[in-house]
This record gives sequence, structure tokens and C-alpha cells, in this order.
Amino acid sequence: MAVGLGPLPTLHPVPGFELGIASAGIKRPGRKDVVVMRCAEGSSVAGVFTLNAFCAAPVILSKQRVGGTVRYLLTNTGNANAGTGEPGLQAAERTTARLAELTGVDASAVLPFSTGVIGEPLPVEKIEGALQAALDDLSVDNWAAAATGIMTTDTLPKGASRQFQIDGVTVTVTGISKGAGMIRPNMATMLGYIATDAKVSQSVLQDLIRDGANKSFNRITIDGDTSTNDCCMLIATGQADLPEVTEARGPLFDALKKAVFEVCMDVAQAIVRDGEGATKFVTVEVNGGANHQECLDVGYTVAHSPLIKTALFASDPNWGRILAAVGRAGVPDLDVSKIDVFLSGVCIASKGARASTYTEAQGSAVMAEEEITIRIELGRGDCSETIWTTDLSHEYVKINAEYRT
Amino acid sequence: MAVGLGPLPTLHPVPGFELGIASAGIKRPGRKDVVVMRCAEGSSVAGVFTLNAFCAAPVILSKQRVGGTVRYLLTNTGNANAGTGEPGLQAAERTTARLAELTGVDASAVLPFSTGVIGEPLPVEKIEGALQAALDDLSVDNWAAAATGIMTTDTLPKGASRQFQIDGVTVTVTGISKGAGMIRPNMATMLGYIATDAKVSQSVLQDLIRDGANKSFNRITIDGDTSTNDCCMLIATGQADLPEVTEARGPLFDALKKAVFEVCMDVAQAIVRDGEGATKFVTVEVNGGANHQECLDVGYTVAHSPLIKTALFASDPNWGRILAAVGRAGVPDLDVSKIDVFLSGVCIASKGARASTYTEAQGSAVMAEEEITIRIELGRGDCSETIWTTDLSHEYVKINAEYRT
Repeated sequence: MAVGLGPLPTLHPVPGFELGIASAGIKRPGRKDVVVMRCAEGSSVAGVFTLNAFCAAPVILSKQRVGGTVRYLLTNTGNANAGTGEPGLQAAERTTARLAELTGVDASAVLPFSTGVIGEPLPVEKIEGALQAALDDLSVDNWAAAATGIMTTDTLPKGASRQFQIDGVTVTVTGISKGAGMIRPNMATMLGYIATDAKVSQSVLQDLIRDGANKSFNRITIDGDTSTNDCCMLIATGQADLPEVTEARGPLFDALKKAVFEVCMDVAQAIVRDGEGATKFVTVEVNGGANHQECLDVGYTVAHSPLIKTALFASDPNWGRILAAVGRAGVPDLDVSKIDVFLSGVCIASKGARASTYTEAQGSAVMAEEEITIRIELGRGDCSETIWTTDLSHEYVKINAEYRT
Repeated sequence: MAVGLGPLPTLHPVPGFELGIASAGIKRPGRKDVVVMRCAEGSSVAGVFTLNAFCAAPVILSKQRVGGTVRYLLTNTGNANAGTGEPGLQAAERTTARLAELTGVDASAVLPFSTGVIGEPLPVEKIEGALQAALDDLSVDNWAAAATGIMTTDTLPKGASRQFQIDGVTVTVTGISKGAGMIRPNMATMLGYIATDAKVSQSVLQDLIRDGANKSFNRITIDGDTSTNDCCMLIATGQADLPEVTEARGPLFDALKKAVFEVCMDVAQAIVRDGEGATKFVTVEVNGGANHQECLDVGYTVAHSPLIKTALFASDPNWGRILAAVGRAGVPDLDVSKIDVFLSGVCIASKGARASTYTEAQGSAVMAEEEITIRIELGRGDCSETIWTTDLSHEYVKINAEYRT
């Protein structure tokens, strides 16, 4: 069902960043469910984490530790270690302590990540038993295997890679993600890991992943639900022979930012494309807002409207539902007579009413496509925001009704 | 599919309030689609209207006129007169002017209400042609016929009635509603008409319907979508031989408020029970909030979560999805360790984690019922809010995907 999502592109190795995959048999014997990532000494690590107040034990721990020296990222699937209280925190501490012991680093240098069922105790011994195999497997060439290793309900692995040259040096940015997560937070969650061999100070790196995630991971939505375990990490190993980026400016920073944002965007959009039950990939573009917040309010109201989502599933160019959603988005003093709405380039509503030039045939033609853009022009200012989402299909209800705790 | 919604109860006539039903053939020849309501001279009329910025032409007109003398309410189904711009306003003015002409009142004494398809011109002549028949039909005994006359996609008529005695005088409050509206705003909308023979000043009446709607019509939600045409009106004819209520206190006011609120609640909940595709009637009760807004934020986040709604459809006691929704509701400094969640009396989550006493068998037993209460205890204060909603079924997607503009 994945919409416009093909096989993995080439994922260039990132010098100083190795990945190892192993099987702990958490849900099924033999399934690859543990991924260890090693960051070369001197790496900077930054991350953004779920804002859900019920954040899982590994998220609590990773948030505490990400500011310090980080050498390993330990991910397991099959169990989210969420809703597990104090014992869950201790379980996450134990797995990271064991990895630290095996590798001779401080326990605080290991960040844990978990995805899977909520509310069940983390199978600590199983995970510990798989760590040595994962370490033995470490290689810079393992991105594709890791992309598969972090999958849960995903139907396809997700990854993206960019390279650029600066002063004759090639810099690589490679990332992977998983997550039909917003659909099934019980079984899955949204995880992203992006690494570069550029050298970047932690504070610049933190701003970079915050801004990058903000334009990508934080702009995708399937049903508005947010997992307890969502994380997106950015690692800079510093192995490229270039000066350290310590400020958010200059040609190296600009090129790096572009590459990081593109990788973020690709792997974030891949999550939407692989949303279970998705038959359409929908871009909601809101222009002409007086500020960014009102663009987001309109965009999310449209993207979350079950009425619009079912119309998208049915390829129904239902301009009335779109206008009604814009109207209830809570934009203060909205002048509806200034609003235009376009469906993939076709003007369906003009000045707040059905466009006189619009024909059902035009609307049906664009709605028949797998990729649809809903563009809303508010006519109030210069701000824009873009959100990506899916339709709401029979399959969505089927998957989520039939999956049980 | 209506959940726990039987035939209409006895709808007591309200002295001074007559209803007449006729057929204008707007969508189908012979279908009853025009309802005229006459308020006795001296009646007070108050109302609450959709907050959607794209409010329909009749809503614009009724909002302007409701403060003055009102003698007639004119409702048509089959056409919402929404998204119709200036010509739509003129069309609404014409139908009300014609009714005023036939009855010898000012045009401003007639309030128009429309529900049906969006974006098509109101068939003014058809409606005008049916007005005399509706006037000829006026009777205080026509509540049940009017409840049917305002239906669009509703499967059952909706009405409620209360009487109370004070100083030996019987006071009646009777109301009707329609609306699978939040599901199909293109075809339907939420309308409520409640009348009493008490004498009430306009300002007290306006506060009464605002507060009553706030606890009923504004607390029901099916999918979060709000129609362009929603209205709820309260009429006080003053025919009961009692002093005028001019202040929001005293035994008469208290008894009237109780009756009005109960009628509001019954007819509002009936809309949810008749929500198309609904198989469950769900009460979301949020207690222990520091303020009302955070209770509402939590309640609506739970009520709108497609993950929770599909779990309800599947009778799946999915406590993880409920906790995750509470966690992302945006409550500041939420201490998850204080949160308890109950499903129809069964504690499923305690102190932010799965309750130790909880068994799947308990959860499955309560989820098998048609009526389910999700009670969330925030443990932060004394505020409470209650919201009513439905599950999300295959049928919902089917109805909304197959209905076309």
C-alpha cells in the first residue's frame, strides 16, 4: 500500500558511524530486533523527543544523557518499554549498562530507544543476550540492514542519503527512519537516525535537528496521534577533514543544513507514504497567513479532518469540506471572501465560494492521482506552512480495529 | 444503527408556539422539507450559532435579526444555502420577506434556517410556493411532524419534553433537533429548536441557551468537524400565567433552567446516538482538572483520537491509546503518575500505568456494551467536563467516502 515509496536508495556510509544488527527474539525468534549504533570518539549527538507527557522510559533516559558524551545508540523493537513506570526505567538502565560494560564506556554514553507494545516489561535478558552479536556486526556499511532492523509494522525500510563537496572534501549525510507509528503507537513509533561525518558543535547540531525535524517529522501527520516513544537523532562524527562548524552560518553550514533537511524530509515523508491504510500522499500547503501558527492551525485542521480524509480516499474533490475545515480552524477575524483553494493546481474555490471556472471533471482528474496537493491561500500575509498526510481508508479502520492490546 | 435511540417520547405542546410542515420538493417531490414555526406575539427568542468563519447565508441573517422582534422561524432542508456568497444572502432575504408578506409581519421578524447541500443556489421559488401550506398547517401539536420535517440524513426524529409545576402552573419545555450533521456537513447540519411557555426576558433567555448549549450541543462531537449552518434556538412564548423571569435566580428560573438543560442534553445526545456509522455511545468524563479548559483539551483529544475511536468500534479496551492521548493533550506540567483511567467503572490504568488489578476479561466485558464511559482522573484540581462521542466504524468511512459533492 506504500504510496510512491520504492526500494531503498543508495545509503552512503558515514565515516565514524557504524551499525550492527542482531536478533534478541523479543517478539519472534530469529527476527532482527536489536540495532546498535556506534559513534566515533569525539562525535556530537543531538536529538528531539516526543512531547507526549507519557514519554517512555528510554525517552526519559535518552533526554537526560544526550547532552553529555554519547558513544552508542541501542534500539530494540517489539517492546516500547512505555507505561512501565519505575521498573521500566531500571530496565532501560540495565540494558545500557550492559552495553557500556561490553564496550568499556560509561553507561551514560549509551542512549536507549524502544518501539513496540506498550505496558509490557522490557525483556532485559533477551536484549542483553543479543548485544555482543550486534557489536560483532558493527560496520559503516550496515545502513540498509539497520533500516530493516528498526522496522515494526512498516512495510518497507526507509532511508535517504546526500553527499556534497566542499573545499575538495566529500561530506555525507545519511539517515533512516521507521514508523507507521502514528497509526499504531502501541506497536510502533516514529524513530529517525541521521548521521554525518561533518564536525559540528553540539549546540549547532541541536539547533539543526530541531529545525530540521520541525520542517519534516513535525509536519507529517496521519491521524494526529503522537507516540510515547518518538525520537529523531542527529550524529556528527567529525571524521571529515574540515573545520568544526560552531556557528549557524557559512558555506559549510549552509550545505550541511540543506543536506540534513533533505534527508529529514525524505525519511519523514517515507513514514507518511508507508502509513498503513494510506492510498494517497497528500501535501497541505497553506500560504498567505498573517503568522506561522495560523498557517499550521489551518493545515492541521484540514489534514486531520476525517471528512476531508475520507473524501480524499474516495477521490472526491469536496471543496465544501475543505472550506468548512478552514472556517473552523480558529483563525481570528478570518475574511472568508479572500480565500482561494487549489487542488493540485486546479482552482476549486475562489474568494470563499466555488470557483466559477471549476468543473467536476477537473477535480476528478486531479483527485485520481496518488499524490495530491491541497493549496490554501488565506490572503492575510506572507507566512506559509506545509504539512504532509494521508487519506482515511477502510484499511485504516480495519488495521486499527483489529489490532488488539 | 442509532445507539439507544428509540421512538420519540411524548412532546408536550407549548402554548404560543405553533409548527407547520409542508413540501417544497427541494430534493424530492413530496418530501416534507419546509417547516415554519410561529412564536406568539411577545415571545422572546435567543440562539447560538456556528463559530465557523464560513457561516451560511441564513446564519448571517438570523444572527442579525435574533436580537429584535421575532415571530417566525423558517427552516428548509435539502439545500444549506452555504458557500453561496451575496446571491445566497439575497435568496435567504427573499424567502423570509415572502413569509413576512403572507403573515403581515416585518421581514426582520423572520429567521431563516437551511440545511442540505453546500454551494448550490437556494430554490427560492420552490420554498416560497410551500409557505402557505406550511402556514395552513400551523398547530401546537405538530412537534413530532416537525422533528421529522427537519431531518436530512438522520435515521430517526429527535425530540424531548419536560414539564414542571410552579405556583400551581404547569410550565412546558419541548425541543427537537436534527443532525448527523457533523458527519455530513455537506448534506446535513446540527439544528435545535426548544420552546417554553414561560415568560423570560431576552437577555436571561440568551444566557440560558448559551449555557445550555455549552453543556450539550457544544459537548457532543463525532469527528470534530463543525458545520457552516449549526444553530440552536430557544423561544419563550410567555403564555404561562407566571411572572417574567428577568434574573438568573429564583425557583422559577432554577426549575426552567433544569428543564431547558435536560431537553438540550436529550436532543443533543440523540444526535450522537444517531451519528451515521456509530455503533457505540461514548461518554468521556474528565475529572480533577486544574481548570475547565484542560479538562476539555483532554476530553476532545480522547474523543477525536481515531486510534481510540477504532478501538471502541472493535470493543478493544486499549488503555495505552487512552494514556497516549491524554499525554499529548497539551496540559502544562502534567504529572502522569497521578492519572487514573476507568472504563465504565473498571480501573484500567492507575497512577499512569496499567492498573495491577485490571484484567483483559474485565475490559472486554465493559467494552462489549453499547454505551461506554471513559473516565479520566487527572488529580490536579476540582474541575470536570463531560463530552459525548461515538466510535469510528467501517460504516463511517463508507458513508463519507461514498457521498459525493
